[in-house]
Amino acid sequence: MLLDYLEQLNATNIVLASASPRRKDILNSLGLDFEIRPSTFEENLNKSDYTPAEYVVENSFRKAIDVAEQQQNAQLVIGCDTVVVYDNVILEKPKDKANARQMLQNLSGNTHQVFSGVTLVVPSSKLTGKQLVYKFAECSIVTFAKLDETLIDAYIETNEPMDKAGAYGIQAKGGMFVEKIEGDYNNIVGFPAHKFCAIVRQLLQEGHL
Amino acid sequence: MLLDYLEQLNATNIVLASASPRRKDILNSLGLDFEIRPSTFEENLNKSDYTPAEYVVENSFRKAIDVAEQQQNAQLVIGCDTVVVYDNVILEKPKDKANARQMLQNLSGNTHQVFSGVTLVVPSSKLTGKQLVYKFAECSIVTFAKLDETLIDAYIETNEPMDKAGAYGIQAKGGMFVEKIEGDYNNIVGFPAHKFCAIVRQLLQEGHL
Repeated sequence: MLLDYLEQLNATNIVLASASPRRKDILNSLGLDFEIRPSTFEENLNKSDYTPAEYVVENSFRKAIDVAEQQQNAQLVIGCDTVVVYDNVILEKPKDKANARQMLQNLSGNTHQVFSGVTLVVPSSKLTGKQLVYKFAECSIVTFAKLDETLIDAYIETNEPMDKAGAYGIQAKGGMFVEKIEGDYNNIVGFPAHKFCAIVRQLLQEGHL
Repeated sequence: MLLDYLEQLNATNIVLASASPRRKDILNSLGLDFEIRPSTFEENLNKSDYTPAEYVVENSFRKAIDVAEQQQNAQLVIGCDTVVVYDNVILEKPKDKANARQMLQNLSGNTHQVFSGVTLVVPSSKLTGKQLVYKFAECSIVTFAKLDETLIDAYIETNEPMDKAGAYGIQAKGGMFVEKIEGDYNNIVGFPAHKFCAIVRQLLQEGHL
Protein backbone atom coordinates (compact mmCIF):
# COMPACT_ATOMS: atom_id res chain seq x y z
CA MET A 1 0.00 0.00 0.00
CA LEU A 2 3.06 2.26 0.07
CA LEU A 3 4.85 1.26 -3.14
CA ASP A 4 4.04 4.55 -4.87
CA TYR A 5 5.33 6.54 -1.87
CA LEU A 6 8.49 4.55 -1.18
CA GLU A 7 10.89 7.16 -2.52
CA GLN A 8 9.42 9.85 -0.29
CA LEU A 9 9.19 7.49 2.69
CA ASN A 10 12.71 6.23 2.35
CA ALA A 11 14.01 9.80 2.50
CA THR A 12 12.41 9.88 5.97
CA ASN A 13 14.29 8.74 9.08
CA ILE A 14 12.13 5.83 10.26
CA VAL A 15 12.85 4.03 13.54
CA LEU A 16 11.34 0.71 14.64
CA ALA A 17 11.22 0.58 18.45
CA SER A 18 11.28 -3.23 18.54
CA ALA A 19 13.87 -5.99 18.53
CA SER A 20 11.46 -8.55 17.03
CA PRO A 21 12.98 -10.20 13.94
CA ARG A 22 9.46 -10.87 12.64
CA ARG A 23 8.49 -7.20 12.72
CA LYS A 24 11.76 -6.38 10.97
CA ASP A 25 10.96 -8.94 8.25
CA ILE A 26 7.45 -7.58 7.70
CA LEU A 27 8.64 -3.96 7.44
CA ASN A 28 11.42 -5.07 5.10
CA SER A 29 8.87 -6.84 2.90
CA LEU A 30 7.08 -3.48 2.50
CA GLY A 31 10.25 -2.08 0.96
CA LEU A 32 10.83 0.33 3.87
CA ASP A 33 14.27 1.54 4.96
CA PHE A 34 14.40 1.93 8.74
CA GLU A 35 16.63 1.71 11.78
CA ILE A 36 16.04 -0.61 14.72
CA ARG A 37 16.24 0.95 18.19
CA PRO A 38 14.54 -1.33 20.72
CA SER A 39 12.82 0.43 23.57
CA THR A 40 14.07 -0.04 27.12
CA PHE A 41 10.54 0.27 28.50
CA GLU A 42 9.96 -2.56 30.98
CA GLU A 43 6.71 -4.23 30.02
CA ASN A 44 5.29 -4.20 33.55
CA LEU A 45 1.79 -2.78 33.17
CA ASN A 46 -0.90 -4.36 35.32
CA LYS A 47 -2.94 -6.40 32.82
CA SER A 48 -6.06 -6.26 34.96
CA ASP A 49 -6.26 -2.48 34.45
CA TYR A 50 -6.73 -2.85 30.69
CA THR A 51 -8.73 -4.61 28.00
CA PRO A 52 -6.41 -6.58 25.67
CA ALA A 53 -6.71 -3.86 22.99
CA GLU A 54 -5.92 -1.11 25.50
CA TYR A 55 -3.04 -3.15 26.91
CA VAL A 56 -1.19 -3.64 23.61
CA VAL A 57 -1.82 -0.05 22.53
CA GLU A 58 -0.48 1.27 25.84
CA ASN A 59 2.63 -0.95 25.57
CA SER A 60 3.21 0.19 21.98
CA PHE A 61 2.80 3.82 23.07
CA ARG A 62 5.31 3.53 25.92
CA LYS A 63 7.85 1.87 23.61
CA ALA A 64 7.44 4.43 20.83
CA ILE A 65 7.56 7.48 23.12
CA ASP A 66 10.61 6.08 24.94
CA VAL A 67 12.51 5.71 21.66
CA ALA A 68 11.24 9.00 20.18
CA GLU A 69 12.70 10.83 23.20
CA GLN A 70 16.08 9.16 22.77
CA GLN A 71 16.36 9.36 18.96
CA GLN A 72 16.32 13.07 18.24
CA ASN A 73 16.76 12.61 14.50
CA ALA A 74 13.84 10.24 14.07
CA GLN A 75 11.01 11.50 11.82
CA LEU A 76 8.72 8.50 12.36
CA VAL A 77 8.92 6.08 15.30
CA ILE A 78 6.97 2.82 15.25
CA GLY A 79 6.08 0.99 18.47
CA CYS A 80 4.24 -2.33 18.52
CA ASP A 81 3.10 -4.98 20.99
CA THR A 82 1.35 -8.29 20.31
CA VAL A 83 -0.42 -10.71 22.66
CA VAL A 84 -2.57 -13.82 22.36
CA VAL A 85 -5.88 -13.83 24.22
CA TYR A 86 -7.63 -17.07 25.11
CA ASP A 87 -10.66 -17.27 27.38
CA ASN A 88 -10.15 -13.61 28.38
CA VAL A 89 -6.59 -14.27 29.58
CA ILE A 90 -3.64 -12.45 27.99
CA LEU A 91 -0.85 -14.86 27.00
CA GLU A 92 2.62 -13.45 26.41
CA LYS A 93 5.86 -15.41 25.94
CA PRO A 94 5.92 -18.68 27.94
CA LYS A 95 8.06 -18.67 31.08
CA ASP A 96 9.32 -22.21 30.54
CA LYS A 97 8.52 -25.45 28.71
CA ALA A 98 5.79 -26.44 31.16
CA ASN A 99 4.13 -23.07 30.65
CA ALA A 100 4.41 -23.45 26.86
CA ARG A 101 2.80 -26.91 27.08
CA GLN A 102 -0.07 -25.50 29.12
CA MET A 103 -0.66 -22.69 26.61
CA LEU A 104 -0.65 -25.09 23.65
CA GLN A 105 -3.00 -27.50 25.44
CA ASN A 106 -5.38 -24.59 26.02
CA LEU A 107 -5.22 -23.39 22.43
CA SER A 108 -5.62 -26.94 20.99
CA GLY A 109 -8.98 -27.40 19.28
CA ASN A 110 -10.09 -23.89 20.21
CA THR A 111 -10.35 -20.36 18.81
CA HIS A 112 -8.29 -17.50 20.22
CA GLN A 113 -7.57 -13.89 19.40
CA VAL A 114 -4.34 -12.10 18.55
CA PHE A 115 -4.16 -8.41 19.41
CA SER A 116 -1.48 -6.03 18.22
CA GLY A 117 -1.23 -2.43 19.27
CA VAL A 118 0.72 0.10 17.22
CA THR A 119 1.78 3.64 18.00
CA LEU A 120 3.23 5.95 15.37
CA VAL A 121 5.07 9.01 16.64
CA VAL A 122 5.89 11.83 14.22
CA PRO A 123 8.04 14.13 16.40
CA SER A 124 7.44 17.11 14.13
CA SER A 125 4.59 16.99 11.61
CA LYS A 126 5.44 18.68 8.30
CA LEU A 127 1.88 20.05 8.31
CA THR A 128 1.59 21.42 11.87
CA GLY A 129 5.17 21.48 13.18
CA LYS A 130 3.90 19.68 16.29
CA GLN A 131 4.29 16.14 17.59
CA LEU A 132 1.70 13.76 16.15
CA VAL A 133 0.82 10.50 17.89
CA TYR A 134 -1.40 7.92 16.17
CA LYS A 135 -2.45 4.74 18.00
CA PHE A 136 -4.49 1.77 16.89
CA ALA A 137 -5.21 -1.84 17.74
CA GLU A 138 -5.90 -4.74 15.40
CA CYS A 139 -7.46 -8.08 16.25
CA SER A 140 -7.26 -11.34 14.27
CA ILE A 141 -8.97 -14.62 15.09
CA VAL A 142 -7.16 -17.96 14.99
CA THR A 143 -8.63 -21.48 15.17
CA PHE A 144 -6.29 -24.33 16.14
CA ALA A 145 -6.80 -27.95 15.20
CA LYS A 146 -6.92 -30.51 18.01
CA LEU A 147 -3.27 -31.26 18.78
CA ASP A 148 -2.03 -34.68 19.95
CA GLU A 149 0.18 -34.60 23.06
CA THR A 150 3.05 -36.17 21.07
CA LEU A 151 2.78 -33.30 18.59
CA ILE A 152 2.84 -30.66 21.35
CA ASP A 153 5.90 -32.36 22.87
CA ALA A 154 7.71 -32.50 19.52
CA TYR A 155 6.92 -28.82 18.93
CA ILE A 156 8.25 -27.75 22.33
CA GLU A 157 11.45 -29.68 21.61
CA THR A 158 12.07 -27.44 18.57
CA ASN A 159 12.32 -24.45 21.01
CA GLU A 160 10.19 -22.43 18.59
CA PRO A 161 7.48 -21.64 21.20
CA MET A 162 9.79 -20.05 23.74
CA ASP A 163 10.07 -16.51 22.36
CA LYS A 164 6.53 -16.27 20.96
CA ALA A 165 3.37 -14.82 22.52
CA GLY A 166 0.97 -17.73 23.07
CA ALA A 167 3.84 -20.24 22.56
CA TYR A 168 3.53 -20.61 18.77
CA GLY A 169 4.78 -18.96 15.59
CA ILE A 170 2.24 -18.95 12.75
CA GLN A 171 4.94 -18.11 10.18
CA ALA A 172 7.00 -21.19 11.09
CA LYS A 173 6.28 -24.74 12.25
CA GLY A 174 3.42 -23.55 14.47
CA GLY A 175 1.53 -22.53 11.34
CA MET A 176 0.57 -26.15 10.85
CA PHE A 177 -1.64 -26.09 13.95
CA VAL A 178 -3.80 -23.37 12.44
CA GLU A 179 -6.97 -24.60 10.82
CA LYS A 180 -8.08 -21.11 9.81
CA ILE A 181 -7.66 -17.45 10.57
CA GLU A 182 -9.86 -14.42 10.17
CA GLY A 183 -8.24 -11.02 9.74
CA ASP A 184 -4.78 -9.76 8.85
CA TYR A 185 -2.24 -12.62 8.75
CA ASN A 186 0.70 -10.30 9.44
CA ASN A 187 -1.02 -9.13 12.60
CA ILE A 188 -0.75 -12.71 13.89
CA VAL A 189 2.91 -12.85 12.91
CA GLY A 190 3.40 -9.70 14.99
CA PHE A 191 2.71 -6.54 13.00
CA PRO A 192 -0.60 -5.34 11.48
CA ALA A 193 1.01 -4.36 8.19
CA HIS A 194 -2.11 -3.57 6.21
CA LYS A 195 -3.55 -1.07 8.69
CA PHE A 196 -0.08 0.40 9.30
CA CYS A 197 0.31 1.04 5.55
CA ALA A 198 -3.16 2.56 5.27
CA ILE A 199 -2.42 4.96 8.18
CA VAL A 200 1.03 5.94 6.88
CA ARG A 201 -0.50 6.52 3.44
CA GLN A 202 -3.04 8.84 5.05
CA LEU A 203 -0.33 10.72 7.00
CA LEU A 204 1.61 11.17 3.73
CA GLN A 205 -1.44 12.35 1.80
CA GLU A 206 -2.36 14.80 4.56
CA GLY A 207 1.18 16.22 4.49
CA HIS A 208 2.30 15.17 7.97
CA LEU A 209 5.19 13.06 6.66
CA MET B 1 1.01 -31.27 12.38
CA LEU B 2 3.66 -33.78 11.27
CA LEU B 3 6.55 -32.94 13.62
CA ASP B 4 6.14 -36.18 15.59
CA TYR B 5 6.14 -38.24 12.36
CA LEU B 6 8.99 -36.48 10.57
CA GLU B 7 11.49 -39.29 11.03
CA GLN B 8 9.13 -41.84 9.49
CA LEU B 9 8.04 -39.44 6.74
CA ASN B 10 11.56 -38.45 5.80
CA ALA B 11 12.44 -42.11 5.27
CA THR B 12 9.72 -42.01 2.58
CA ASN B 13 10.49 -40.99 -1.00
CA ILE B 14 8.27 -37.91 -1.39
CA VAL B 15 7.94 -36.12 -4.74
CA LEU B 16 6.40 -32.69 -5.29
CA ALA B 17 4.96 -32.49 -8.82
CA SER B 18 5.27 -28.69 -9.00
CA ALA B 19 7.91 -26.13 -9.92
CA SER B 20 6.38 -23.41 -7.69
CA PRO B 21 9.01 -21.91 -5.37
CA ARG B 22 6.23 -20.99 -2.93
CA ARG B 23 5.02 -24.59 -2.61
CA LYS B 24 8.63 -25.69 -2.11
CA ASP B 25 9.03 -23.11 0.68
CA ILE B 26 5.84 -24.21 2.45
CA LEU B 27 6.78 -27.91 2.31
CA ASN B 28 10.28 -27.04 3.53
CA SER B 29 8.79 -25.11 6.46
CA LEU B 30 7.00 -28.33 7.49
CA GLY B 31 10.40 -29.99 7.84
CA LEU B 32 9.73 -32.40 4.97
CA ASP B 33 12.46 -33.86 2.75
CA PHE B 34 11.23 -34.21 -0.83
CA GLU B 35 12.27 -34.12 -4.47
CA ILE B 36 10.87 -31.71 -7.04
CA ARG B 37 9.70 -33.24 -10.32
CA PRO B 38 7.42 -30.78 -12.14
CA SER B 39 4.68 -32.40 -14.19
CA THR B 40 4.62 -31.97 -17.96
CA PHE B 41 0.82 -32.00 -18.01
CA GLU B 42 -0.38 -29.09 -20.15
CA GLU B 43 -2.94 -27.19 -18.13
CA ASN B 44 -5.49 -27.05 -20.93
CA LEU B 45 -8.74 -28.22 -19.35
CA ASN B 46 -11.88 -26.39 -20.41
CA LYS B 47 -12.74 -24.25 -17.40
CA SER B 48 -16.42 -24.13 -18.31
CA ASP B 49 -16.72 -27.89 -17.72
CA TYR B 50 -15.80 -27.54 -14.03
CA THR B 51 -16.59 -25.65 -10.85
CA PRO B 52 -13.47 -23.89 -9.49
CA ALA B 53 -13.01 -26.62 -6.83
CA GLU B 54 -13.37 -29.39 -9.43
CA TYR B 55 -11.02 -27.55 -11.79
CA VAL B 56 -8.11 -27.25 -9.35
CA VAL B 57 -8.58 -30.80 -8.07
CA GLU B 58 -8.58 -32.18 -11.62
CA ASN B 59 -5.43 -30.21 -12.50
CA SER B 60 -3.71 -31.43 -9.32
CA PHE B 61 -4.75 -35.01 -10.15
CA ARG B 62 -3.38 -34.87 -13.71
CA LYS B 63 -0.08 -33.43 -12.44
CA ALA B 64 0.31 -35.99 -9.65
CA ILE B 65 -0.61 -39.01 -11.81
CA ASP B 66 1.71 -37.83 -14.61
CA VAL B 67 4.67 -37.66 -12.21
CA ALA B 68 3.74 -40.87 -10.34
CA GLU B 69 3.91 -42.76 -13.63
CA GLN B 70 7.35 -41.36 -14.44
CA GLN B 71 8.93 -41.63 -10.97
CA GLN B 72 8.84 -45.33 -10.24
CA ASN B 73 10.60 -44.97 -6.86
CA ALA B 74 8.21 -42.39 -5.48
CA GLN B 75 6.25 -43.45 -2.38
CA LEU B 76 4.16 -40.27 -2.13
CA VAL B 77 3.50 -37.84 -4.99
CA ILE B 78 1.95 -34.44 -4.30
CA GLY B 79 0.14 -32.51 -7.04
CA CYS B 80 -1.35 -29.05 -6.48
CA ASP B 81 -3.08 -26.30 -8.43
CA THR B 82 -4.22 -22.86 -7.22
CA VAL B 83 -6.52 -20.28 -8.83
CA VAL B 84 -8.17 -17.02 -7.84
CA VAL B 85 -11.92 -16.73 -8.43
CA TYR B 86 -13.61 -13.36 -8.70
CA ASP B 87 -17.21 -12.89 -9.76
CA ASN B 88 -17.37 -16.56 -10.83
CA VAL B 89 -14.42 -16.17 -13.21
CA ILE B 90 -11.24 -18.23 -12.73
CA LEU B 91 -8.12 -16.05 -12.82
CA GLU B 92 -4.77 -17.72 -13.46
CA LYS B 93 -1.43 -16.02 -14.16
CA PRO B 94 -1.80 -12.76 -16.12
CA LYS B 95 -0.90 -12.90 -19.82
CA ASP B 96 0.73 -9.46 -19.81
CA LYS B 97 0.85 -6.20 -17.85
CA ALA B 98 -2.49 -4.96 -19.19
CA ASN B 99 -4.12 -8.22 -18.09
CA ALA B 100 -2.47 -7.90 -14.64
CA ARG B 101 -3.80 -4.33 -14.32
CA GLN B 102 -7.31 -5.48 -15.22
CA MET B 103 -7.19 -8.27 -12.62
CA LEU B 104 -5.96 -5.92 -9.88
CA GLN B 105 -8.60 -3.31 -10.78
CA ASN B 106 -11.25 -6.02 -10.45
CA LEU B 107 -9.93 -7.28 -7.11
CA SER B 108 -9.53 -3.74 -5.68
CA GLY B 109 -12.04 -3.03 -2.89
CA ASN B 110 -13.67 -6.45 -3.34
CA THR B 111 -13.69 -9.95 -1.89
CA HIS B 112 -12.48 -12.94 -3.89
CA GLN B 113 -11.79 -16.61 -3.32
CA VAL B 114 -8.62 -18.64 -3.64
CA PHE B 115 -9.04 -22.34 -4.46
CA SER B 116 -6.30 -24.92 -4.23
CA GLY B 117 -6.72 -28.53 -5.25
CA VAL B 118 -4.37 -31.22 -3.98
CA THR B 119 -3.92 -34.83 -5.05
CA LEU B 120 -1.81 -37.27 -3.04
CA VAL B 121 -0.78 -40.45 -4.85
CA VAL B 122 0.63 -43.35 -2.82
CA PRO B 123 1.68 -45.79 -5.59
CA SER B 124 1.69 -48.74 -3.20
CA SER B 125 -0.07 -48.43 0.15
CA LYS B 126 1.76 -50.23 2.97
CA LEU B 127 -1.67 -51.32 4.22
CA THR B 128 -3.30 -52.61 1.02
CA GLY B 129 -0.41 -52.92 -1.45
CA LYS B 130 -2.56 -50.99 -3.94
CA GLN B 131 -2.39 -47.49 -5.36
CA LEU B 132 -4.12 -44.94 -3.14
CA VAL B 133 -5.29 -41.59 -4.50
CA TYR B 134 -6.57 -38.88 -2.16
CA LYS B 135 -7.95 -35.60 -3.54
CA PHE B 136 -9.23 -32.50 -1.83
CA ALA B 137 -9.94 -28.82 -2.43
CA GLU B 138 -9.55 -25.91 -0.02
CA CYS B 139 -11.04 -22.44 -0.33
CA SER B 140 -9.91 -19.25 1.41
CA ILE B 141 -11.55 -15.83 1.19
CA VAL B 142 -9.56 -12.64 0.62
CA THR B 143 -10.72 -9.02 0.91
CA PHE B 144 -8.67 -6.35 -0.85
CA ALA B 145 -8.53 -2.70 0.16
CA LYS B 146 -9.44 -0.12 -2.48
CA LEU B 147 -6.25 0.37 -4.50
CA ASP B 148 -5.23 3.70 -6.08
CA GLU B 149 -4.26 3.49 -9.77
CA THR B 150 -0.78 4.82 -8.92
CA LEU B 151 -0.38 1.95 -6.47
CA ILE B 152 -1.48 -0.65 -9.04
CA ASP B 153 0.97 0.83 -11.56
CA ALA B 154 3.84 0.78 -9.06
CA TYR B 155 3.03 -2.84 -8.18
CA ILE B 156 3.00 -3.95 -11.82
CA GLU B 157 6.37 -2.28 -12.29
CA THR B 158 7.85 -4.62 -9.63
CA ASN B 159 6.99 -7.55 -11.94
CA GLU B 160 5.71 -9.45 -8.93
CA PRO B 161 2.21 -10.01 -10.40
CA MET B 162 3.35 -11.73 -13.57
CA ASP B 163 3.83 -15.31 -12.31
CA LYS B 164 1.01 -15.30 -9.77
CA ALA B 165 -2.60 -16.48 -10.09
CA GLY B 166 -4.82 -13.37 -9.81
CA ALA B 167 -1.76 -11.11 -10.37
CA TYR B 168 -0.69 -10.77 -6.73
CA GLY B 169 1.46 -12.55 -4.16
CA ILE B 170 0.08 -12.39 -0.61
CA GLN B 171 3.42 -13.48 0.88
CA ALA B 172 5.26 -10.55 -0.75
CA LYS B 173 4.46 -6.93 -1.64
CA GLY B 174 0.92 -7.89 -2.69
CA GLY B 175 0.19 -8.80 0.93
CA MET B 176 -0.28 -5.11 1.66
CA PHE B 177 -3.42 -4.97 -0.47
CA VAL B 178 -5.10 -7.54 1.74
CA GLU B 179 -7.42 -6.10 4.36
CA LYS B 180 -8.35 -9.49 5.73
CA ILE B 181 -8.53 -13.15 4.93
CA GLU B 182 -10.67 -16.02 6.12
CA GLY B 183 -9.26 -19.54 6.00
CA ASP B 184 -5.80 -21.07 5.64
CA TYR B 185 -3.19 -18.42 4.81
CA ASN B 186 -0.86 -20.95 3.16
CA ASN B 187 -3.67 -21.94 0.82
CA ILE B 188 -3.59 -18.38 -0.54
CA VAL B 189 0.18 -18.54 -0.91
CA GLY B 190 -0.33 -21.68 -2.99
CA PHE B 191 -0.52 -24.80 -0.83
CA PRO B 192 -3.18 -25.76 1.77
CA ALA B 193 -0.60 -26.91 4.31
CA HIS B 194 -2.87 -27.49 7.27
CA LYS B 195 -5.27 -29.85 5.48
CA PHE B 196 -2.36 -31.56 3.72
CA CYS B 197 -0.73 -32.28 7.09
CA ALA B 198 -3.99 -33.53 8.58
CA ILE B 199 -4.50 -35.95 5.64
CA VAL B 200 -0.89 -37.20 5.66
CA ARG B 201 -1.16 -37.71 9.42
CA GLN B 202 -4.27 -39.80 8.83
CA LEU B 203 -2.57 -41.86 6.09
CA LEU B 204 0.35 -42.50 8.48
CA GLN B 205 -1.91 -43.47 11.37
CA GLU B 206 -3.92 -45.82 9.13
CA GLY B 207 -0.70 -47.48 7.99
CA HIS B 208 -0.79 -46.50 4.30
CA LEU B 209 2.54 -44.61 4.49
